[in-house]
Amino acid sequence: MDPLDQQQQAARTWFESLRDRICAEFEAIEREAGSEACFLYTPWERVDVTGEPGGGGVRGQMAGEVFEKVGVNVSTVGGRFSDEFARSIPGAEEDPRFFATGISLVAHMANPHVPAVHMNTRFLTTTRRWFGGGADLNPALPYDEDRAFFHDQLRAACDRHDPTYYERFAKWADDYFWLPHRNVARGVGGIFYDRLEGEFDPNFAFTRDVGEAFLAAFPPLVRKRMGMPFNEADMERLLEFRGRYVEFNLLYDRGTLFGLKTGGNVDAILMSLPPLARWK
Amino acid sequence: MDPLDQQQQAARTWFESLRDRICAEFEAIEREAGSEACFLYTPWERVDVTGEPGGGGVRGQMAGEVFEKVGVNVSTVGGRFSDEFARSIPGAEEDPRFFATGISLVAHMANPHVPAVHMNTRFLTTTRRWFGGGADLNPALPYDEDRAFFHDQLRAACDRHDPTYYERFAKWADDYFWLPHRNVARGVGGIFYDRLEGEFDPNFAFTRDVGEAFLAAFPPLVRKRMGMPFNEADMERLLEFRGRYVEFNLLYDRGTLFGLKTGGNVDAILMSLPPLARWK
Repeated sequence: MDPLDQQQQAARTWFESLRDRICAEFEAIEREAGSEACFLYTPWERVDVTGEPGGGGVRGQMAGEVFEKVGVNVSTVGGRFSDEFARSIPGAEEDPRFFATGISLVAHMANPHVPAVHMNTRFLTTTRRWFGGGADLNPALPYDEDRAFFHDQLRAACDRHDPTYYERFAKWADDYFWLPHRNVARGVGGIFYDRLEGEFDPNFAFTRDVGEAFLAAFPPLVRKRMGMPFNEADMERLLEFRGRYVEFNLLYDRGTLFGLKTGGNVDAILMSLPPLARWK
Repeated sequence: MDPLDQQQQAARTWFESLRDRICAEFEAIEREAGSEACFLYTPWERVDVTGEPGGGGVRGQMAGEVFEKVGVNVSTVGGRFSDEFARSIPGAEEDPRFFATGISLVAHMANPHVPAVHMNTRFLTTTRRWFGGGADLNPALPYDEDRAFFHDQLRAACDRHDPTYYERFAKWADDYFWLPHRNVARGVGGIFYDRLEGEFDPNFAFTRDVGEAFLAAFPPLVRKRMGMPFNEADMERLLEFRGRYVEFNLLYDRGTLFGLKTGGNVDAILMSLPPLARWK
């Protein structure tokens, strides 16, 4: 993998520092619940299609009392796309070299009143450069006020950068996180964006603000709901809801399918799957 | 849907009578375990792409003490393939009319020592006619003797019809029931066949024998293992094994993907998914 240039290094450093802050906050929540759970970190390396070293990442995972299963991956990879794949990636049609750095997070929660959540932001380099990412909330037992609070934080982050972002990116999330075979949404949405090209600085600033918005939005929801009593019916609802989450990720999620079918790190890719799920 | 001709009616009648015998046998096993569980049957109808009635089927499902979740579907459908789909189906390139009748069965068992199992046989009509199907065993805790017994029954059925069948169809099952992203098999194999064309009578006789072999092979394995004690580690192994089963069906199984993406009966298609599965 080529040495990182200044933009790539800046993005990578941000994603890693965001990971550190998120994991520290999630561990702090575990302490508040009287648990000693910690993230365990597993580094992995990637071999490029050329046979050269192709970067790698660190998979962080915690099995806690509040966070039944949470994974936070950071990865920084590069090399050459396969010929077939290069044709489908902007800017790689003529020159298959690429670089990608990003963070991805999925949290499945023990208490059915606490929503599951997904967040991912990334910076891609081919002959073009762009940011992408988003965050979406997946409550088995949805509360309007939780959805509103989560969306408000994301809207505020969007509005600081472009008055059109929130509407466009929230709709993109609604369109993307959709199970056509059941005609239902995966959750209650959030934002999704991709191909954010142009000047590096403002796009990087927006992507950082999405991470900050996630940190402002999710932990308060966890703290608010994690002590709520629940019954067997709530737990049934959670396990069935997680089944829909599995269906989405294995049937439709582009990142999952791409990763699995091109020899990515299976443990890191499938870390998104829930600890337990039910199909009636 | 056009009226069934003699071959189609004969195949349909067989699949329905096989269903009746299998369900009766599985309910008999539940009685032996002291359970009152019964199959519940839900009929469903299909609307063809033309807007005309397109046949339908009956989804049978039981939640028992031995059979934690077992589904047995029979369906008899027909009409016209969509233009795009017709191009991928033998004999439908020029004339998109089709007819299909078949039985499909998936059993997920409560005791981790009892293997899960899948069986499916079908008769297709386009401008050509063929049988397809198979059966495969999916033990979380594999026993060599169980695998051998199951394969022996299938081999005997194959050998009565063609000396090349068992070797070809067992290899086909090994190739088909494979998870490339994990580089593991879904289970311990069985047989898989498709496009069995030519004379109707011998191919129908073979397909009936596959059903008979299933009835001879699986219930004895259930009775042998269903009373075995198991511990928490065995149950963990079962739940993780079922996770691999979910991955196969949602990522690779052609029938599942085709059904979901072309508006089939979701409940009948996803009846194959286990009652509970875990991803660590």
